[in-house]
Amino acid sequence: MKKITLIITAMIFSGIVSAQFRPEKVIPPPDGFKPASTNTFISQYPAVNAVSRQVYFRVVAPTAQNVQADLAGKKYALTRDSLGVWTGYSDPQVVGFHYYAILIDGVAVMDRNTEAFFGGNWENSGIEIPEGPEGDYYRFNKNIAHGQVRSIYYWSEINGMERHINVYVPSEYEINTKEKFPVLYLIHGWGEDENGWSNQGHMANIMDGLIASGKAVPMIVVMPSGDIKTNSDVREASGNITGIFTRNLIPFIDSTFRTYTDRKHRAMAGLSRGGFQTCLTVSENMDKFAWMGTFSGLFIQPNTGIDEVFNGMFKDANVFNKQLDLYFVGTGTEERNPKDLVQQLKDRGINNIVFYESPGTAHEWLTWRRALNEFAPLIFK
Amino acid sequence: MKKITLIITAMIFSGIVSAQFRPEKVIPPPDGFKPASTNTFISQYPAVNAVSRQVYFRVVAPTAQNVQADLAGKKYALTRDSLGVWTGYSDPQVVGFHYYAILIDGVAVMDRNTEAFFGGNWENSGIEIPEGPEGDYYRFNKNIAHGQVRSIYYWSEINGMERHINVYVPSEYEINTKEKFPVLYLIHGWGEDENGWSNQGHMANIMDGLIASGKAVPMIVVMPSGDIKTNSDVREASGNITGIFTRNLIPFIDSTFRTYTDRKHRAMAGLSRGGFQTCLTVSENMDKFAWMGTFSGLFIQPNTGIDEVFNGMFKDANVFNKQLDLYFVGTGTEERNPKDLVQQLKDRGINNIVFYESPGTAHEWLTWRRALNEFAPLIFK
Repeated sequence: MKKITLIITAMIFSGIVSAQFRPEKVIPPPDGFKPASTNTFISQYPAVNAVSRQVYFRVVAPTAQNVQADLAGKKYALTRDSLGVWTGYSDPQVVGFHYYAILIDGVAVMDRNTEAFFGGNWENSGIEIPEGPEGDYYRFNKNIAHGQVRSIYYWSEINGMERHINVYVPSEYEINTKEKFPVLYLIHGWGEDENGWSNQGHMANIMDGLIASGKAVPMIVVMPSGDIKTNSDVREASGNITGIFTRNLIPFIDSTFRTYTDRKHRAMAGLSRGGFQTCLTVSENMDKFAWMGTFSGLFIQPNTGIDEVFNGMFKDANVFNKQLDLYFVGTGTEERNPKDLVQQLKDRGINNIVFYESPGTAHEWLTWRRALNEFAPLIFK
Repeated sequence: MKKITLIITAMIFSGIVSAQFRPEKVIPPPDGFKPASTNTFISQYPAVNAVSRQVYFRVVAPTAQNVQADLAGKKYALTRDSLGVWTGYSDPQVVGFHYYAILIDGVAVMDRNTEAFFGGNWENSGIEIPEGPEGDYYRFNKNIAHGQVRSIYYWSEINGMERHINVYVPSEYEINTKEKFPVLYLIHGWGEDENGWSNQGHMANIMDGLIASGKAVPMIVVMPSGDIKTNSDVREASGNITGIFTRNLIPFIDSTFRTYTDRKHRAMAGLSRGGFQTCLTVSENMDKFAWMGTFSGLFIQPNTGIDEVFNGMFKDANVFNKQLDLYFVGTGTEERNPKDLVQQLKDRGINNIVFYESPGTAHEWLTWRRALNEFAPLIFK
């Protein structure tokens, strides 16, 4: 082996050569801190302390005048050493997933040592604050069977282009190759994309656990893009998207996978803006869905227009109860809570609602991981 | 619909609110320029001109003193307007995929409007310079059947942790549910990861096209991480990695997918450092592979040690010819070319070599897309 010589042209990319000697790769984090699970391969920083739940940032920026970290709405000034390496600690954080940015002379940029997550309609850095045993349900469990998340492009006639989707397929799908499966369509929220549920949400670990324990039936989970626009007028985008979902996507799924195609075996749920799109899509296609969920996404103003919203879906409680086997409403207790609205729907006689409040969480991924974990066991039963 | 009011708490993430009003979302690119295909959803910049093959950069950085774009080894100073938006044009570029960075006051950061690609051992921005009809082989073709790239975590006893792989499964796998398939193990290069072949390489489009046209047999393509370390001693990482590939990964694949498990139905290929890992793995496991490929990755110094390298794999031409049905050596004409070495191997009597030179390309993804397109039709036949 000693006579093997690497051809150094393997490293001709200028960025790669400079990256190779980045000092943050070799200096270990402070005592009690470990590299975040959201870091890229062998990156040491940012590091998190599982006890204090603080983040330790480390940014190499010798030519910058000022470097800050922006996490959960607070900016932290980092301190420069003589080599131009900037470091600093955050306050204790809420567990779960958070977006963050590094500010180089006031310009918000990504931390290149962290996996990139699409959020806020652009690429973002994200960090996972570790949780105790409660978080086991969204972590990888080596002792159970695992489904697979398939990355697929399909042709949309409405868009005139290929569209990307992720499809979770349970392990049972491979084993029972004659069996058909029900399908949950699961939509992301504002500013995120079709990768959100898989990357930020760890949905595959959640579904693997629910299915292995028998709490949920084996199901296919389809995660499309909701084409969330940056402007605040959702109607244009949403009007288009319901057609893409029902006229292009559902036929593609039903012709590509072994699915049950009746409404009793089809559910839709979404978080935040995806909850709005869920209500809109289901209301236009009551013949296609029997199960519906909104996680932090019940978008109607209490006391106004319940008869009219979503094509009058909530107007007649008897019709709604007959059409939908379940309407699951999830929320975090620390965000705007739709409990009054839920009560109002119940008062109208809508009795197939399950209302779930995630304790201590706001409009964030921990709310939505928990909501999926509560919702999935209730459907297709 | 008019009575629906959005709950604005859907946008409480500070980053999301600021992102919503980013001006680069609405100002169209200059005449002749179109958003790059590597941009994130609805991002207008960077924009590329398919004729001049220039890139137009646009970066919002009002507080920066100096902004540059770093593309293909050259830095371009961008010009600030009165609002703090920095713009500028690059020189004409070679077609295909290139990494690039934005320099904010000298600090190399990512362009947040571009898909993130892992390269140089950290997150990078990438841009695709469009090609004419020649590039059709790596673009999505709506008129043919498509395989799926599955994202899978499996447990590695050697690592004591879950490891991520991507697995391309041809469309035939779903249709012929009793059939078994051959497997190509396809390794990335230095500083990249298991997503490289799928994201930077468009391997799914290439394989779809080859299989649909009958040029290649339907095959499964497994893309693991090669655990490329940042230091220059590949032996440590590679010694470990061959065990992970053969003792953990191959058994997982053969027990999870319907595969042929004999060596005549198993191939390995890799680009750059992945080519080195391919030679090393195959040489240690001649009973497991019958087909081998290195794309810009034949890592032996001409005239030295050919008898000894890779466990003596090349020492006896008769043994090598009998063991391997094919050794494919790919290279770009504009990088260090191993043609003398290939000739030396042929002179020793190794006659199962196919040597491919990609015209006009260097150590870059266009070389490797072309190499895969040439290699895959030759194996399992």
